[in-house]
Amino acid sequence: MPTPSTSTSSPSLPTSAPARTLARDLPAAAPGTMVRLQGWVHRRRELATVTFLVLRDRTGLAQVVVRNGVGRALEVLPEETTVEVTGTVTSNPQAPGGVEVTEPVITPLTDAAETPPVELWRPALTAALPTLLDHAAVAWRHPAQKARWEVAAASLRGFRATLDAAGFTEICTPKLVGTATESGANVFAVDYFGRPAYLAQSPQFYKQQMVGVFERVYEVGPVFRAEPHDTVRHLAEYRSLDVELGFVRDHHDVLAVLREVVAGMADAVRASEAAERLGIEVPEVPAEIPVLHFADALRMVGAPTDEPDLAPEHERTLGEWALAEHGSDFIAIEGYPMAKRPFYTHPQPGSGVGSGPGNERWSNSFDLLFRGLELVTGGQRLHRYADYVAAIEARGEDPASYASYLQAFRHGMPPHGGFAIGLERWVARLVRAANVREVTPFPRDLHRLTP
Amino acid sequence: MPTPSTSTSSPSLPTSAPARTLARDLPAAAPGTMVRLQGWVHRRRELATVTFLVLRDRTGLAQVVVRNGVGRALEVLPEETTVEVTGTVTSNPQAPGGVEVTEPVITPLTDAAETPPVELWRPALTAALPTLLDHAAVAWRHPAQKARWEVAAASLRGFRATLDAAGFTEICTPKLVGTATESGANVFAVDYFGRPAYLAQSPQFYKQQMVGVFERVYEVGPVFRAEPHDTVRHLAEYRSLDVELGFVRDHHDVLAVLREVVAGMADAVRASEAAERLGIEVPEVPAEIPVLHFADALRMVGAPTDEPDLAPEHERTLGEWALAEHGSDFIAIEGYPMAKRPFYTHPQPGSGVGSGPGNERWSNSFDLLFRGLELVTGGQRLHRYADYVAAIEARGEDPASYASYLQAFRHGMPPHGGFAIGLERWVARLVRAANVREVTPFPRDLHRLTP
Repeated sequence: MPTPSTSTSSPSLPTSAPARTLARDLPAAAPGTMVRLQGWVHRRRELATVTFLVLRDRTGLAQVVVRNGVGRALEVLPEETTVEVTGTVTSNPQAPGGVEVTEPVITPLTDAAETPPVELWRPALTAALPTLLDHAAVAWRHPAQKARWEVAAASLRGFRATLDAAGFTEICTPKLVGTATESGANVFAVDYFGRPAYLAQSPQFYKQQMVGVFERVYEVGPVFRAEPHDTVRHLAEYRSLDVELGFVRDHHDVLAVLREVVAGMADAVRASEAAERLGIEVPEVPAEIPVLHFADALRMVGAPTDEPDLAPEHERTLGEWALAEHGSDFIAIEGYPMAKRPFYTHPQPGSGVGSGPGNERWSNSFDLLFRGLELVTGGQRLHRYADYVAAIEARGEDPASYASYLQAFRHGMPPHGGFAIGLERWVARLVRAANVREVTPFPRDLHRLTP
Repeated sequence: MPTPSTSTSSPSLPTSAPARTLARDLPAAAPGTMVRLQGWVHRRRELATVTFLVLRDRTGLAQVVVRNGVGRALEVLPEETTVEVTGTVTSNPQAPGGVEVTEPVITPLTDAAETPPVELWRPALTAALPTLLDHAAVAWRHPAQKARWEVAAASLRGFRATLDAAGFTEICTPKLVGTATESGANVFAVDYFGRPAYLAQSPQFYKQQMVGVFERVYEVGPVFRAEPHDTVRHLAEYRSLDVELGFVRDHHDVLAVLREVVAGMADAVRASEAAERLGIEVPEVPAEIPVLHFADALRMVGAPTDEPDLAPEHERTLGEWALAEHGSDFIAIEGYPMAKRPFYTHPQPGSGVGSGPGNERWSNSFDLLFRGLELVTGGQRLHRYADYVAAIEARGEDPASYASYLQAFRHGMPPHGGFAIGLERWVARLVRAANVREVTPFPRDLHRLTP
């Protein structure tokens, strides 16, 4: 019987080597101590007698001073080469953080790097968007670009923390679905073992069904839209932050949860180093987000009263108004016309254009605008089986093709509603990027499927 | 200028109505106080003079006592109907938690529910697997079934918390990819605006590239395998918990992180109510997971020394050995043959069968077995551009078709490695389910694309 090794440490480094010090922690190290840094050669500046190597790791930059002619030949250390540096902590008020590393022993960890396609050491990344996208794996190493994604990651933490604390359960729903029923158009078809399947446009049907199990659910996942649009705010694959909750009175209960979620996301971003590094203004989310009815919004922007939707310029105007009038970066528009919302939308009671239920003009749905851009769509959903059958038939479709979805409603579903936040739009608006592609490492659209 | 409403509360309920009490909190309510419950009619037991309604909400069960002939007619309250109950908290040592609700006013929130396809009120769900899967939206309401997913949700929390604390950044990588390069076989093809695309089999290439940006990354997301297998442990879509980290010495540093991650997941499950409700044994993760070399593992199970992989029965034997010999539910097998691992696998230095590098027999990769089932695959990856070119050419492929992936390696990548945990396998093994479909609400496989 062989004796297995239970050691998880490697003998490749002498045990006397100090533990790795991160760039962030270097200023706290006592002058005179030996430290071991690891990272990328961010910048090399050769002077007459010394060369400054600026080392970049995941936490920041550190200055290393090399006396020319001493130690490792500098020609094997072009920018972006990964290295390990062992040296002495030395005070220098001119160095970043007041310390630098002197008397270094520098060991390359890979071959010398080729010259990067973008200049990562400059304070700002000046490359045009197509260059940034084509060379994403390298371009995102730029500290300012990296910080943009750290804002996204902090947002995800804030989203989950808020919902976990409020009794929500995270779910994972299938992205391969059997029918293209939710809207019909704009779905991607998949060859599924020889039969047709589709990529889910949203977890809508599944998150509703799971309200029947957990009452309150959320999911962070990819959604797929075969968008024929080529705009600065549409992607063919994006991250949707989905929430659904039961036992609501109407969509105002959903809006109250949305307010908490957005505030939790903003708080997490505000607490992140990335927000500070980028110098972004993180919005204060008002205790109650201003709500305007769709009909009032149309009047306010001077649009015809029978317009079925708000145009981007209308949303901008409403965003400016919310800021001027309420000091809020956010405004919710409620009551969108039933005719423009999906069949599962709950009507606004009493807004019938004809007589009785089934003829309501307005809905209990809403959009949330953030700085004048649609960020969230949500609302109350139908919860009675009979209402679903009527709504589907009214659109000329057959309820039988929705049988597995409708099953949940035959067996008791509470009044419920929810919303979906587009992660890329949220981050783009936060960092004031004009195009969602600027904050998406590997965007997918009409033209782009690589890298 | 219209005045928008800033209220998020609805006028539909009288303000004198008490706030909702969850079933879990009912035993803490003072006898004699009025409470408002909401949930599903879990079970109805009619006696001569009273009817017991057991109400189910997301936190548990509560007993409501209805005097027959008083209040709402019980025939409109079949099981699974959603209701609101306002009544008086009354001590009763026989009731669950020692309290029940008497003098109730019961308001149905939806139409009377149809009889469920499975008996949710029984202590155990006895339906056969196909029935459970066909009626997932209803069957998962069963408290024991629901708890199984809560184990999954707790695991995700533990996974992220461990990695967030260790300086990892969450990433989101594309699921639509342009080339089927990672393995070629078993990919799903997508019609992407008229040209071919594929569903990502893993985030492998992207998580490696992002090591160049963040050093330490993780992702929780769907992966897609067009698996022709019809087994109890394969799905066509599953949740992969992916991790990748830079500046490792070899795969033992990766295993050390894996140990922390699995321990964090186990701790989160142990702390959950679901684990208690299910009475599952959550494994203690040893401070150092036993590691056995593949060559020794083959000898131990009595397999020929030129076997390229471990069969499921070998894995079971090794799992039993780890438990008997080390008291561990986990064992890592390292050194899998290079011939059976993907091209990006780092060889085990010095294991050359011919002369020099490029001919190594063993790899710096590993599998982690949990109770005798492969749960995790991981290892060290190549990090030098030239090594990638050689490895791809050695497999008869053209490095040019990997250009966008290889770009990261041309511009400096540290030694790195990572792993992927299959969420469904982890949960199945934890709750001792024989089939991953028993713990997956909406599984996708060779035969199943709905619900």
